[in-house]
Formats: sequence, C-alpha cells, structure tokens
Amino acid sequence: MDQSQILDGKASVVTLLSDFGDRDVYVAVMKGVIAQINPQLRVIDLNHQIPPQNLAAARFCLMDAYPYFPEGTVHIAVVDPGVGSKRRAIAVEFPQGFLVGPDNGIFSGILSQQQAIAAVELTNRNYWRSTEISHTFHGRDIFAPVGGNLASGVPIQELGREIDPASLVQLEITECQQIGNIITGCIQYIDHFGNLVSNIPGSYVQGKTWCVQVRSLTITGCETYSDVKVREAIALVGSHGWVEIAINSGNAQSQLQINWQDSLEIILLS
Amino acid sequence: MDQSQILDGKASVVTLLSDFGDRDVYVAVMKGVIAQINPQLRVIDLNHQIPPQNLAAARFCLMDAYPYFPEGTVHIAVVDPGVGSKRRAIAVEFPQGFLVGPDNGIFSGILSQQQAIAAVELTNRNYWRSTEISHTFHGRDIFAPVGGNLASGVPIQELGREIDPASLVQLEITECQQIGNIITGCIQYIDHFGNLVSNIPGSYVQGKTWCVQVRSLTITGCETYSDVKVREAIALVGSHGWVEIAINSGNAQSQLQINWQDSLEIILLS
Amino acid sequence: MDQSQILDGKASVVTLLSDFGDRDVYVAVMKGVIAQINPQLRVIDLNHQIPPQNLAAARFCLMDAYPYFPEGTVHIAVVDPGVGSKRRAIAVEFPQGFLVGPDNGIFSGILSQQQAIAAVELTNRNYWRSTEISHTFHGRDIFAPVGGNLASGVPIQELGREIDPASLVQLEITECQQIGNIITGCIQYIDHFGNLVSNIPGSYVQGKTWCVQVRSLTITGCETYSDVKVREAIALVGSHGWVEIAINSGNAQSQLQINWQDSLEIILLS
Repeated sequence: MDQSQILDGKASVVTLLSDFGDRDVYVAVMKGVIAQINPQLRVIDLNHQIPPQNLAAARFCLMDAYPYFPEGTVHIAVVDPGVGSKRRAIAVEFPQGFLVGPDNGIFSGILSQQQAIAAVELTNRNYWRSTEISHTFHGRDIFAPVGGNLASGVPIQELGREIDPASLVQLEITECQQIGNIITGCIQYIDHFGNLVSNIPGSYVQGKTWCVQVRSLTITGCETYSDVKVREAIALVGSHGWVEIAINSGNAQSQLQINWQDSLEIILLS
Repeated sequence: MDQSQILDGKASVVTLLSDFGDRDVYVAVMKGVIAQINPQLRVIDLNHQIPPQNLAAARFCLMDAYPYFPEGTVHIAVVDPGVGSKRRAIAVEFPQGFLVGPDNGIFSGILSQQQAIAAVELTNRNYWRSTEISHTFHGRDIFAPVGGNLASGVPIQELGREIDPASLVQLEITECQQIGNIITGCIQYIDHFGNLVSNIPGSYVQGKTWCVQVRSLTITGCETYSDVKVREAIALVGSHGWVEIAINSGNAQSQLQINWQDSLEIILLS
Repeated sequence: MDQSQILDGKASVVTLLSDFGDRDVYVAVMKGVIAQINPQLRVIDLNHQIPPQNLAAARFCLMDAYPYFPEGTVHIAVVDPGVGSKRRAIAVEFPQGFLVGPDNGIFSGILSQQQAIAAVELTNRNYWRSTEISHTFHGRDIFAPVGGNLASGVPIQELGREIDPASLVQLEITECQQIGNIITGCIQYIDHFGNLVSNIPGSYVQGKTWCVQVRSLTITGCETYSDVKVREAIALVGSHGWVEIAINSGNAQSQLQINWQDSLEIILLS
C-alpha cells in the first residue's frame, strides 16, 4: 500500500507506554519495528517507567495524557502481566484516536471518559510482525506492527474480529463519594515530585472553601503554590484536574508519609 | 495559518529542558501539545533530569547545548519554582534561535555569551493552550504552545508585549578571577560520570603548563585521559570548553569528595 | 549537496547507543549536531544507560536490536573507554545498514552474525564537526557528524581510508559449548526486569525436553510465563532468541542471586 497517499502529507503520531524502563533496548526495538512499517510516523514516548506490571499507574497515565494529542493518534500501551496467556490483544477506536494493547484494563480510564466507537480482537496475523511470535514480547511482535499499520491508515476492522466494547476488561478502582459536605476518596497517583494526586475531581471543590483531612493533618484548600510558604503542605486542584496534595518546594509523599491508595477526606466549608 | 508554507519544507527543531524526570507524562503532554499545533516539528529532549528547581544546573545545560543546534531552533525550558506567582513568562530571540520559559535566570548563561535581539513577555493569550490555564503547569499551557507556534513561523512580536532584554532576571553565579598566575573558580556542574566542570574557561590554560589545587590535592594539567593511568585524577580542558577534573575510568565526585560550588585554584607554571 | 535529492522523500533512520545516561546534555548535543547536518533524519535512542564503559553490554544491545530496524539504518555507538588514545574511529557497512563508532569490539556481536561489506577508518576530516576536535567527546565531534552524513547518502568510501574488516577489534566473550546432552554457557546480559539472558541460542533446546542447572537449582524448561506460578523460577527461550531464566512476576537476578558472567548448564532430557 502507498502510505504517503494514505498519510496525505500529514505526520501521524504514535505514542508508546510501557514498564520497560530505559536500561534495555525493548522500547527501541518497538520503534524500529514501527519505522520498518512507516518511517514517516512520529513516535512519542508517553512513559516507560511505569512500575513493573502496575496497571493502575498505566491506566492513570493514559487517561491523563490522551486529551493533549492530535486527533487520530495511536496509543500503544504494553504493561502486560498476562503476556503468553489467553488474555486478548485488542485495538479500540475512540473519538480522539486509537488504543492498542492487551485487554487487561489499562485503557479503562480513558474509556470511563470517552465512548468506544469500535473494538477488535487482534486476530489478523497479516498485520503482526511475522506468523511466528514470541510468548513474551507482544509489544514487538503484535502491538508495534498493528499500531504502525493503524497510524498509516489501515482500517481497524482489518485488524481482527469485532468485539463488543462493553466486554473489555475493567480495572477496579476505588471511586470517590460525596455525602453531605464530606467527600471521601483515595490517592490514585504519586508523581516524581512526590505530589499526591487524589481521585476527587477538581470540579467538586472549585469556587468553594474547603480543606483536606489525611492522617491527622488538616490542609487548607488553596489556588496556587505561592499561597503557602516554602516547605508547607498545600491542597489544590492540580494540573491533572484532580485535587492534589503537595509541599511547596518539597516532596509530599516522603514528608507526609502518605502512600498509593491511602484514603483522604475533603470537608466543604462553604 | 498554513504551516507547511511557513516551514517551507524544512523541519524546524524544538528542544525541551525541564526537571520533570521520566516517571510521569508531563514531558509527553508537552510534546502532544506541540504536535497538536504542528506535527512536522522535530522535538529533541535536552534533559529532563535537572535536579528539582535547580536553576544553576538548568542554566549550565542550556548554555552548554545551544551551539550545537540548527539556526532557528526554539529552546523551551521549564524549571519553574515560581509557577503561579507573578514571575514573567518570556520569549527571547538571539542570533541562533529562540528561548521560551519563565523569567527566572535559566537563560542567563546563554545571554552572557549571546546578545538578545528581542524579548517579549508572553501576554497574548491567543497563543496559549486555552484562555483558562492551570496555576501549576505553564509548560503545557503556555510554553509548549508558544514554542510550537514560534517554531512554526509566528513572529516573536505577536506573542506579547516587548520588554527590554536588559530587564531579564540574572542568576548570580560565582565568577572566576585571575590574579597574577593564580586563577580561582568553582565547580559549576557535575556530570553523571562524576566529572567536575569548573567555571574556568579552557582558554585561560591552553598552551600553558598548569596544575589544579583542590582540597589538599594537586593535579597536573593534561591533554587527554590517556595521559594518566586508569583510576588516576586528571585535570584537562573538557569537551564543554571548561577546565574539568576527572578520574580516568572513575568517578571524580565520589573519589575526590568534591561537590557543587566547591572552589578550586589553578596555578599557571609557564 | 542537496540532501532532499539523496533522501528521495524517504526518512532515513539513525540510532544512538551510549553510556551517557540521561542526566546531562551529551545525547542531546549529538542529536543537535545531526539536525544541523540534516533535520529530516529520524533519530531513535537505542539505549543510553549502558553501564559506564561496559563494552559487553553495548555489544549485546546492538546485536539484539539491529534486526528490527529498516534497511540502511545508521547505528552510532559511543561506549569509548579509549577516547583520546590511538584506537581507530570506524564506519562499517553490513547488509542491513551501517555502524559508526570506536574500533573497540562493540560491533563484534553484529559482525559475528552479519558479514561486513566494507569498513573504513574515519580519516576524512571534511565530515567531522570541525578540524579542531576534543580529546574526550568524539560522539559529538566525529561519530554524530559522520553518521548524519552517511544517513544522508554520503558513500562510506568518502569517509576515510578503507581497512580490512578482518582487522576490526573483537570482544572476547565466553562461547557456549555442547558435549553430549550437556550444554554449558554463561549469563551474557541481565535486563531491567532482572531476567537473565544466557549465551545459549534457543535453537539448541527448541522442541526438546530440557532443564537448566545454575548454582544448586534445577529449573525446568518451559514455553511461557503462565506455565509456572507467580514468583516461581522459569527457564524459557526469551524474546531475544536466547535461553533465559526469569521469575514469573519477579526479579530473577536478585531472587536467585545470579550475576553477569555466571555460568549455567542445560541438560537435554530428550
């Protein structure tokens, strides 16, 4: 197929997310496979430092990043504890682009915000790297070549048999709850600054006076880091759009001794 | 605007520098925002492992790297302890390209070597990501979209109100001094090999016989690593163009117990 | 020279491998130098986390990755303990592309699998960054500009004087040996998951019943991770094509206390 025709002068974008780290050539090999299919594609690393096999972190990072990419972007995600087992390999079309990876819940964050348009199980081996594939590296042998073809204009229906989007695996994540003026939730992500991202949407507190209670601490809700002194704790709606706890010029995770999944409570004061 | 016309077939280059690390999707989100504006741009990571909020390290890395990029390259730098406060967001034009970031001194190394042609405060919200921006992630909401537009041909004057380049914030860095045959300076950067980069330009010692005194050690000035045995200390003009102290096949920082900002002295012997 | 003519609309691919890590701007500077020569080239990072000056790891990563890149790809490798000494700087043409770097054995893995077509010593300074070069950073001053030119269509013979491929430095690596139904080998690579990659090709065991003996452990040869329970040791032919030892959802290196170069034995049972 004439890919320059399909692409029509536009550079299509592919993103990669994995738990492969940066000490090996796994990520590079996936990029090589994509370049073998279509060297015109732009490949952007989402994050390869997902803690090994941590599906919750992968789910959050994908949900956090997808709104900022061009329409039609293909997101390939390879956090895949079930590789070699019977878990399905899938591709999903949604309004802003495509998702390619194992059917293990990593896409369930995006799909809680966006309706799937179509989903297929990747059964058409013509779009795999070869008919003989490894039991351990489907990123190289299935997901990279399928993603590279999808970004080059191959219709999703070509890639395998259609499946019901409602049948896709969901990750179970604690939901946040509001009862009266109390909202309870948990820490769903901790970034490398040590900022603690809760699963409470910013819209619950915006325009209100509020504070956070976590362990024995009460932290007043603010608007910006400069509202508190250096090394002081702050609660605010972070850039991710969720209520966050941070330390101005410090590391909230280590200073407050709070961890993944710890619960927190917001009190609306007005 | 028709960006392919502006770019005229050429791939414009954008670089990114930050203290965002590689464990989150902050860097990827900036690249997505740039691809939304113009997927033809080439984005090169300068370094995202700047120690959190270390402006001196950011200043050195930018000064070290800019000469090696094509004319017109846009360097976006986001080490930004003052995000959300009143610090200005700026763009600067200099002979080899453009600088985009907070006005906090990170560009003062480049601007000590290169005359600014123009500078603007980023006040034109038409070139921001949206009119509503976060208090904590101007890299995504202001600097990436402004840089992507600048690299696509938008004139710098469009981006905001002109300001006097002389008004830009300077970082205070210890300067090196020569009195007679003694030059005093300090360690301004330590790379990941543990090589110690001083702030004494190589031109001060080139063609001369010299030695370095640091703590109680005296190290003879050499030309190349192979002038000393494996595991021996060496002083030489490094690839950065500054006098450096290294250990042949070893880590000078840990073996010599020298740190950032430590002072050193060069004695010119002839 | 008109590079768009040479490239003929195709995006040529350059890969970079080094021990430069991600804390400095060394890698970015090499990419800048390549963009100065030809901004149309696609640059893909193979791996910059090679342990400092570890030629065996660099040799393995290159050998592991090259089959997955497009024909004509230029692989630039800079793990270079002898920089500044008399070691040769070389470029090698082989059936699938080109190799550029120091002549210290890093390419000997690829060249044990692929016949060199031509080799040159990089003596033509017209293709270096400038006539004056550093003693410590040939990646920037020689290898990046030579690789960028090669990927843009400059014939390899232009780059220096031809040398005999048989004269290239070889790394000495323990070879694997089969005597009767016993195969002995060693651990040639450990990836960031802690998976232990031996130097015994998968073809020695495929279709057979076999087990591995390492230290006082006996591990049965399997086909896929899901053949054993979580946290159990498994021996299988890994995605690299070599016999590997892994722990299902665990770290084999730390749990089994096995290290680089440790020997292992395979017993063929049928």
